[in-house]
Amino acid sequence: MRSSENKHRVSDAPETMYQDTRDATVALAKDLTDADATVQSMPDASPAKWHLAHTSWFFETFLLAPNLSGYQAFDDRYVFLFNSYYEQVGDRFERPNRGLLTRPSLADVLEYRAHVDAGIRDLMRSETDPEVSALIELGIQHEKQHQELILTDILHLFAQNPMRPACKESEPLAVNKTETAPTGWTEFSGGIIGVGHSGDGFAFDCETPRHEVLIKPFRLANRTVTNREWMQFIEDGGYQNAGLWLSDGIAAARDQGWFAPLYWEKCDDIWWSMTLRGFQPVDPDAPVTHISFYEADAFASWTDKRLPTEFEWEHAATNQPVEGNFASSGRLRPKPQEGAHISGLYGDVWEWTGSAFLPYPGFKPANGAVGEYNGKFMSGQMVLKGGSCASPDSHLRASYRNFFQPDKRWQFSGLRLAEDLVTSNVEGNT
Amino acid sequence: MRSSENKHRVSDAPETMYQDTRDATVALAKDLTDADATVQSMPDASPAKWHLAHTSWFFETFLLAPNLSGYQAFDDRYVFLFNSYYEQVGDRFERPNRGLLTRPSLADVLEYRAHVDAGIRDLMRSETDPEVSALIELGIQHEKQHQELILTDILHLFAQNPMRPACKESEPLAVNKTETAPTGWTEFSGGIIGVGHSGDGFAFDCETPRHEVLIKPFRLANRTVTNREWMQFIEDGGYQNAGLWLSDGIAAARDQGWFAPLYWEKCDDIWWSMTLRGFQPVDPDAPVTHISFYEADAFASWTDKRLPTEFEWEHAATNQPVEGNFASSGRLRPKPQEGAHISGLYGDVWEWTGSAFLPYPGFKPANGAVGEYNGKFMSGQMVLKGGSCASPDSHLRASYRNFFQPDKRWQFSGLRLAEDLVTSNVEGNT
Amino acid sequence: MRSSENKHRVSDAPETMYQDTRDATVALAKDLTDADATVQSMPDASPAKWHLAHTSWFFETFLLAPNLSGYQAFDDRYVFLFNSYYEQVGDRFERPNRGLLTRPSLADVLEYRAHVDAGIRDLMRSETDPEVSALIELGIQHEKQHQELILTDILHLFAQNPMRPACKESEPLAVNKTETAPTGWTEFSGGIIGVGHSGDGFAFDCETPRHEVLIKPFRLANRTVTNREWMQFIEDGGYQNAGLWLSDGIAAARDQGWFAPLYWEKCDDIWWSMTLRGFQPVDPDAPVTHISFYEADAFASWTDKRLPTEFEWEHAATNQPVEGNFASSGRLRPKPQEGAHISGLYGDVWEWTGSAFLPYPGFKPANGAVGEYNGKFMSGQMVLKGGSCASPDSHLRASYRNFFQPDKRWQFSGLRLAEDLVTSNVEGNT
Amino acid sequence: MRSSENKHRVSDAPETMYQDTRDATVALAKDLTDADATVQSMPDASPAKWHLAHTSWFFETFLLAPNLSGYQAFDDRYVFLFNSYYEQVGDRFERPNRGLLTRPSLADVLEYRAHVDAGIRDLMRSETDPEVSALIELGIQHEKQHQELILTDILHLFAQNPMRPACKESEPLAVNKTETAPTGWTEFSGGIIGVGHSGDGFAFDCETPRHEVLIKPFRLANRTVTNREWMQFIEDGGYQNAGLWLSDGIAAARDQGWFAPLYWEKCDDIWWSMTLRGFQPVDPDAPVTHISFYEADAFASWTDKRLPTEFEWEHAATNQPVEGNFASSGRLRPKPQEGAHISGLYGDVWEWTGSAFLPYPGFKPANGAVGEYNGKFMSGQMVLKGGSCASPDSHLRASYRNFFQPDKRWQFSGLRLAEDLVTSNVEGNT
Repeated sequence: MRSSENKHRVSDAPETMYQDTRDATVALAKDLTDADATVQSMPDASPAKWHLAHTSWFFETFLLAPNLSGYQAFDDRYVFLFNSYYEQVGDRFERPNRGLLTRPSLADVLEYRAHVDAGIRDLMRSETDPEVSALIELGIQHEKQHQELILTDILHLFAQNPMRPACKESEPLAVNKTETAPTGWTEFSGGIIGVGHSGDGFAFDCETPRHEVLIKPFRLANRTVTNREWMQFIEDGGYQNAGLWLSDGIAAARDQGWFAPLYWEKCDDIWWSMTLRGFQPVDPDAPVTHISFYEADAFASWTDKRLPTEFEWEHAATNQPVEGNFASSGRLRPKPQEGAHISGLYGDVWEWTGSAFLPYPGFKPANGAVGEYNGKFMSGQMVLKGGSCASPDSHLRASYRNFFQPDKRWQFSGLRLAEDLVTSNVEGNT
Repeated sequence: MRSSENKHRVSDAPETMYQDTRDATVALAKDLTDADATVQSMPDASPAKWHLAHTSWFFETFLLAPNLSGYQAFDDRYVFLFNSYYEQVGDRFERPNRGLLTRPSLADVLEYRAHVDAGIRDLMRSETDPEVSALIELGIQHEKQHQELILTDILHLFAQNPMRPACKESEPLAVNKTETAPTGWTEFSGGIIGVGHSGDGFAFDCETPRHEVLIKPFRLANRTVTNREWMQFIEDGGYQNAGLWLSDGIAAARDQGWFAPLYWEKCDDIWWSMTLRGFQPVDPDAPVTHISFYEADAFASWTDKRLPTEFEWEHAATNQPVEGNFASSGRLRPKPQEGAHISGLYGDVWEWTGSAFLPYPGFKPANGAVGEYNGKFMSGQMVLKGGSCASPDSHLRASYRNFFQPDKRWQFSGLRLAEDLVTSNVEGNT
Repeated sequence: MRSSENKHRVSDAPETMYQDTRDATVALAKDLTDADATVQSMPDASPAKWHLAHTSWFFETFLLAPNLSGYQAFDDRYVFLFNSYYEQVGDRFERPNRGLLTRPSLADVLEYRAHVDAGIRDLMRSETDPEVSALIELGIQHEKQHQELILTDILHLFAQNPMRPACKESEPLAVNKTETAPTGWTEFSGGIIGVGHSGDGFAFDCETPRHEVLIKPFRLANRTVTNREWMQFIEDGGYQNAGLWLSDGIAAARDQGWFAPLYWEKCDDIWWSMTLRGFQPVDPDAPVTHISFYEADAFASWTDKRLPTEFEWEHAATNQPVEGNFASSGRLRPKPQEGAHISGLYGDVWEWTGSAFLPYPGFKPANGAVGEYNGKFMSGQMVLKGGSCASPDSHLRASYRNFFQPDKRWQFSGLRLAEDLVTSNVEGNT
Repeated sequence: MRSSENKHRVSDAPETMYQDTRDATVALAKDLTDADATVQSMPDASPAKWHLAHTSWFFETFLLAPNLSGYQAFDDRYVFLFNSYYEQVGDRFERPNRGLLTRPSLADVLEYRAHVDAGIRDLMRSETDPEVSALIELGIQHEKQHQELILTDILHLFAQNPMRPACKESEPLAVNKTETAPTGWTEFSGGIIGVGHSGDGFAFDCETPRHEVLIKPFRLANRTVTNREWMQFIEDGGYQNAGLWLSDGIAAARDQGWFAPLYWEKCDDIWWSMTLRGFQPVDPDAPVTHISFYEADAFASWTDKRLPTEFEWEHAATNQPVEGNFASSGRLRPKPQEGAHISGLYGDVWEWTGSAFLPYPGFKPANGAVGEYNGKFMSGQMVLKGGSCASPDSHLRASYRNFFQPDKRWQFSGLRLAEDLVTSNVEGNT
């Protein structure tokens, strides 16, 4: 199993992991102009420059300021500018205005990053307090989360631009026009199952405490839903058939004019979509992405199936290697999955579950400002599992809980179907 | 008197239960003027006249039109006017405009009710199809839900009026100024517990299927949180301390200017509040009410406790009689609860739980338009349990799931604290 | 000329004029239910009950309270409830919430009116201060303005109701299907002309000071634009052709979905419209009404003509009798006008002019709260002239300036075309 | 140097004037980063890059495409991207999203400018059609308008940034703390006066036709209102005293939280303000700026004076040289004016008038898309006269009509007081 090996390697050399992560963030922005890195295309998104600075602010605020004696802040005003939502750190610049900060420039922010990196190197050399080490690891994992957001936010920005810029050079894909086979299914017998982080390696606060849940027998599709299947849903009037939708879902679909996944556009009767590799025809065999929870739920109703719970998904993933189409592959789009055995659990697309993002039994936020990490978001959001083609490597695990409001579409979000299993008790492929 | 006994008596004489329910609805409106019954004070609320008509529309549409041969609709236009949200029944009048219908008058609507009642009597005499009987019972229970809404909606309307009208004659209460004892607690050992409706008597679709859940040992406060305790929360800066709140919660509190429960007003340093019995001083010993889930959750954080899950609550309520301060008492306000043993589970105030309103495993909506009853609302809402001082009698049970968005405050909603129990396994009072 | 005779008669018997006006207001509401009189259909409109009370509040606040010794207010809370916009009188109930006041009831408000009427009778008997007399006359004219609003506001309310109530019994009209002749024109040679109120009889503050303006030769259509002409505009794509519209106008048309005058609806290829006499086919020969300034201006562009200025209109009206289709005719809809000579200047429809509502040179608001009468509205509105089928008798004159924002449509507003006259200097028909 | 001399020199060498104007625009942006030039800080403002491109689009669309044979568009997509509001040119990119266009880059846009410049040079060499020459002059004057907007829009952007960038190096000013003398006044006897453009040299469509108006005797302040006077207005509670304000004005002040001119901030009891030269103490002797029409009007009421009409202003300016503190001075802020004789009519601050921006008698928009230049904006705006410290040289004249909605504050807008003159007929200083 790769995930634990990764963890292991990482804990051997935190300095390397720190610097690799920091470098990877900068690498994501290397083809962005100062303007690309500055503009905010909607309140949900942030400018790349802001991500670059905020992740540094995190290290400066929670590590350097309290722990590195003699540390000089790079610029005192950055505390205000680059705080995200930490109430206990004080006032902050309004989120919807992040894109107004044409200064500091991208170059200034890169300098800020170097300044912080030097500080962290100093701190790591001198500091052995395990709490500090834990906070550094939190900062690293926090930065990995923002790496994914840099990609999804820049895609959203570029998708607003009629010039249709590509984040990485365009790469047209061969598109298979023939019908593919329906997915196979894997059955799980359920039982009283342990879920949540087991205590080995890093995890975010919301993945704990590990606890037991009762899972009924179920089966899970071997692959996520494809674009071809989604086109059938569209053609069957899925977006108009209110009977398939949650009430808030159909209201969102009507208000926001949804008729297909985000970024889809029909040109000469062919579906195209905006991607990180430019404007491209939709690949029918690839996993559908950029759909909201509401759309995922309506699709599942249309098939007379349902979404898995987060616990069913975690149970299915527990013995799977953490491998898949992540950002490091450079593809930056979901790729067709096999359906013979269960696959694609990690990478390609985040999979919406039917579980609300709520605290696990016994959950307590950490003390201090970092205690605001996840707990304060535990209302109104749904859990997604597995990571996407924009996720960094070495970041995911079965217990990882991503979460977004049910109407959000700009992440690489898709779905995998599930179904109750009444009679069978066998765990394995059908 | 136990809930199941109620059910039993009721099922003996459906005609009586039907007519009693219908009469009770009209009785609630008897002191309302035509204008009182017409105006809508916010999109969440509906005019009393609309409730009176819509509950009749339910019987006409789902019972009389399809099943009573020769039935003549009272007015064909009412199908459009008084449909609430049933997509499959066709177009409907926009919800936020319900208050614009000055015609039909209250008198017309009462005539419409009589017309429908005559039809249902005919149908009940002739019809023995159990599906029809089940739909009649659904209509009765549906009407009981609207009885409670008539009260909460009229209170909201009257609270907007500087004339401060009372729905029932004003009744000042003696107010106890001395500190009361803190609540006692009852412990529960948990285990694998059956939840959901057991199949005996009526239940709404969302209460099924009955299924097992795993509950960890916990304890539950013997009474709900009081106004006195809430005043301490206010005085301690609870509404300003963002660290206690969910992120969406503090945003709602700031946007909507919350500084106390809905309807509270400070006059000469004393808290007063608008009630169905007029503008009255707040009774410190009575359960706090008209609070949102967000406020309930912040209060629980302030006490270092938490809200119970819906399953913990249901488990605690299972062996309790369905008794309490309901609408029939005529008090129409929560009344102080004992704290020596667990009490007040039913009546007084709906208790917010920490559970999102989601489908039970295996839940399938019914076929046809009544299948839209609860399933389509299973996103973005939280479960409340137990009923309130505005709930009709014979309507509640342990498995009953009420649900509202986490920012809603105009229902009689309060909270009861819960806590994990690490060591004890004994079920009983501490 | 009737207008001056009216004035003369009126000044002989102010008590009669007072009571006639008050009675006429009540008569307008006589077929309204308590609910009809209570509901507010949009922020621009007010409930009939509010109009009935506010006009009484005006007399109570500006006449009785300061001048009638020993006067007891009917209800102290009404000062707050029924103030419209007078900042100097103190706080007031928010305008958009006027429809939430189900209490006081219509009956209470009628009692309030009687109480005020008794007070004014006392005051008139005892008081000879000309300033008080002037304020009484202002109160009477103020009330006449609200009489018109009662009609336009109740029409707006009833038009929202799919039951399509009529304010007065329905009266279908014979509809002429054949093409009528285009309008004739009357020429005016212009010059330095006196405009504004001449000092004889009552006028509102904004009609003064009388002053001279320079008017170039122009001609004015003998009748207002008809529904038939408007249908041609619609059929010619007038609502879609942005080139005809002001920028703010086409934006309003798009945002609010205008495709025809307010209240028009096409049924089986025939235009119908909601009127005070119920839902009726549009009479092609009657003046078009319920159009905004933006629509009037776009129509004028379509004909390559323009709207008259307020001064051109006033100049043309100066020698015309103040006669026409007013509310007292009971028709309550515009009626076809002759086109042989200039006609219809008074009554039928208010005529949008191309003049912004601005202060006349030397205008000073009166001292005190009544100084807020018109002056504070002198921005963002356009002047309308002539009165409508909903205007009371004895209320209008050539210098009368009505004014509304350019996107308002719920008044009886129409238009008359004008054109520059380059060569001719003759005043008279062409 | 008189305005007409300027015009004369310019018409001798249109190529020079063209290139000088184009170069001046680029010079304004020379210190802006790509990000500065890309971001849009509010829907009213546009990115500098957009201004640079749109002014080129104007030449390309109205001159090169129709008139230069063989002209190749620089990029076909720019037609859509950089159209401002010309309905007849086709669809356009939504105004509020202009700031999302991170591509094309500033460098691309500068290349686009060079491409267009080469085309215009070709056209000017070959083309002698006077209509084409007139369009080129319109394009030049259009570009000068956008030069001013580049400055006001960048100031607005920088003012949102807590880093407080300066557009040009900061320049603190000596600030005079002692009270200055009140303004003197100049009297004008009025009469029948010709207004509007006289036909000599360039003018925008809305300045024509020249026509006569009747002006009553008035006097005009010798200088504009100063910051010191404005501070007195603030201290006297001017922003809270609703009696001074238009109704829409006080509503805007309350909704938008106005308590001082835009960009003012009180630090340690001293007023500071954001300027193009950085964050600086307010100079009490300089003209107040960044105020809305509503504020100007309320201030005038406070002094018991009024704003001049556009015709009074134009009359007073007719014999004045077009000299003043324009952008070319490099000061980029209003500077203290003399009060001994009438001065400061041109430059420093645009002066709000009491005139609505309406068509002059006989105004007809030009045919074709350029006919949309000003006519479509003739509703809901007020006229400003005289230019500002951000206006380009050689751009202004007495008949120039600038116009903005009455709540706009981000232009360099101030006011000069006027007053009716009852007895005196002498034109000259008092």
